[in-house]
Amino acid sequence: MATNTRNLHNLDIRKPTVLVDERRVRKNIERIAEKARASGVLFRPHFKTHYSAGIGEIFKEYSVSTICASSVEMAGYFARYGWKDITIATPVNLRQLEEINDLAREIALGVIVDSVEVSQFLAKHSEAPLSVWIEIDVGYLRTGVWWEDVATISEIASVIKNSKSTRLKGILTHAGHSYHVQSKDEIPKIYRETSRKMSQVRVFLASRNLGDLLISVGDTPTCSLVEKFSGVDEIRPGNFVFYDLTQNGIGSCTVSDIAVAVACPVISRHPDRSELVLYGGAVHLSKDFLESHGHKMFGLIALPTEDGWTEPLDNAYVSRLSQEHGTVIADRELIEKTWPGDILMVIPVHSCLVSNLHRSFMTLDGRILPGPSPV
Amino acid sequence: MATNTRNLHNLDIRKPTVLVDERRVRKNIERIAEKARASGVLFRPHFKTHYSAGIGEIFKEYSVSTICASSVEMAGYFARYGWKDITIATPVNLRQLEEINDLAREIALGVIVDSVEVSQFLAKHSEAPLSVWIEIDVGYLRTGVWWEDVATISEIASVIKNSKSTRLKGILTHAGHSYHVQSKDEIPKIYRETSRKMSQVRVFLASRNLGDLLISVGDTPTCSLVEKFSGVDEIRPGNFVFYDLTQNGIGSCTVSDIAVAVACPVISRHPDRSELVLYGGAVHLSKDFLESHGHKMFGLIALPTEDGWTEPLDNAYVSRLSQEHGTVIADRELIEKTWPGDILMVIPVHSCLVSNLHRSFMTLDGRILPGPSPV
Repeated sequence: MATNTRNLHNLDIRKPTVLVDERRVRKNIERIAEKARASGVLFRPHFKTHYSAGIGEIFKEYSVSTICASSVEMAGYFARYGWKDITIATPVNLRQLEEINDLAREIALGVIVDSVEVSQFLAKHSEAPLSVWIEIDVGYLRTGVWWEDVATISEIASVIKNSKSTRLKGILTHAGHSYHVQSKDEIPKIYRETSRKMSQVRVFLASRNLGDLLISVGDTPTCSLVEKFSGVDEIRPGNFVFYDLTQNGIGSCTVSDIAVAVACPVISRHPDRSELVLYGGAVHLSKDFLESHGHKMFGLIALPTEDGWTEPLDNAYVSRLSQEHGTVIADRELIEKTWPGDILMVIPVHSCLVSNLHRSFMTLDGRILPGPSPV
Repeated sequence: MATNTRNLHNLDIRKPTVLVDERRVRKNIERIAEKARASGVLFRPHFKTHYSAGIGEIFKEYSVSTICASSVEMAGYFARYGWKDITIATPVNLRQLEEINDLAREIALGVIVDSVEVSQFLAKHSEAPLSVWIEIDVGYLRTGVWWEDVATISEIASVIKNSKSTRLKGILTHAGHSYHVQSKDEIPKIYRETSRKMSQVRVFLASRNLGDLLISVGDTPTCSLVEKFSGVDEIRPGNFVFYDLTQNGIGSCTVSDIAVAVACPVISRHPDRSELVLYGGAVHLSKDFLESHGHKMFGLIALPTEDGWTEPLDNAYVSRLSQEHGTVIADRELIEKTWPGDILMVIPVHSCLVSNLHRSFMTLDGRILPGPSPV
């Protein structure tokens, strides 16, 4: 029993625990920060992936002082840890205008809008100086005004410009369709098209005297795979800090770039059907999955080492999840040497959702990096 | 804007919020509690679905004093709220033996085992009196000793019986394959087979002088659809307290039995493609989905009313989720009358995972029922 616990021997891991490899985090941050610097664009990383003041501190080492959050609560959390320039990169939730006004009195707060109605409401009811971005849809089809709908974009720009409490900062897009490519070779093309469409919108607004606006783009696939960020003013990737198997599948990273893994104790063994069961279920890993050969895959399996974890094993993956249980299909070799009490590492499919479920991380030398209190 | 906020007008809902209809909760608890009483079996509900001291208080009105939890932390949480008899219904995680020993000194604690190795470890290292159940697999193929493997079952029973600190309480199973039926007519058959297999195991162990053991079963489909619990001693359903669309799909409940819905503000409107976007994403609803006509469905849509919510609308559902955004496909009628700031109610696919993501509930009269601190 517990044969592989000789590894990770300094760490007191008792239950499913997100381990973070800070060396990889630093490498991931440095790579994008350096490209942003070389391209002359502002780096405004999205902090939704980690939601951790401790990981935030690492960004400060790379001179990052501008960030994104995905909710008012998250922006408030990072404001309490000293972040002074935050864009909430989800369309304004009008029901939180009071909290938005409060926060905008404390920090440089940016919000995004994608309708005339919400813009009018903000123009009328926002109190503190608020930076407003118009969200543009360049092809993802989630939120944002369609980039060719210049009538609506102009009307929003005009409403925001003509209010004393709102300042029109720029146009912003999330090219999330970059997640749906068949090959990573398509990614630079998505970047170029995004940049071209956003530039056209900017030129149009300038021609109507609606300002000389900034262009903000950001998604991890394009920010990872494009070498030079031309035609834009700021980038907002988030997932790159940890990466995950989804990004690895797209081609944005190698498996050696993935900076988090969930250490899970083995609780049950079933050699007859080539399965192990982990204490580590949907409440630890999320139900996000990738499909491979018609099977759902909720994570790959690696072994703990003295200073982290191995590359994912070839013949082992999380095949089913219930609330607390994760079923691993593995080859005979792994099953024969693995016993209840052993730790297996799960390389996550989607690191953002894993982080949200844990709210704290353990570093490879056993420190706890705190996340937020529950919302 | 905000046309339907005239409803739910007493409630201060600013962000995605789980509303709980206590009247339905009481009806759901009463129905199973009454069947258990009439069948002469112990009702030991699984509290993982709600993980809320406030919902726990409602169970006390129905004379419930014995419960299940799915983790050591959850058992500790409910122990702090006065629950004195708790079974942790997930195979023992040996790495938490210290916490298990501590808790077993305070309350009547039950644990489950499915291997000789773990049983031997417990027999040697458990300190306080520990009630042990042998988990039996009657067909779900997740954890548990296969019911026909009487050699292993006997050996475990013998190890547990011969230790001073462990007491062999009984045999326990979760017939989770009841979730995979094609028709609810198959459910009573699963119950009968489960009961028959468990009885055979009990008879065998008695014949070997390994005790006169209790039989514990429990899953929401069989507990909802079987009228009389014959041949068993205790039932452990969990999800029935709230139910959800998964249970409705199985036939365990009607949509009017579903006792929770997530109130989500609308943040974006796209009439051109028949879509609305909610502030309500994977971190509020989980990524669990049902499939219908080849489409993923992450929740149905209902409208708020003055005292709860309507039945699910026919032509509206959550079709995509990202971290904070939920995309709703809806018919023209709903889209035309719905604006940013309005609230739509999402009837959840899987209420257990939704609860875990929120950690508190709002009652229909605006009280907050607390959940646990983050683990």
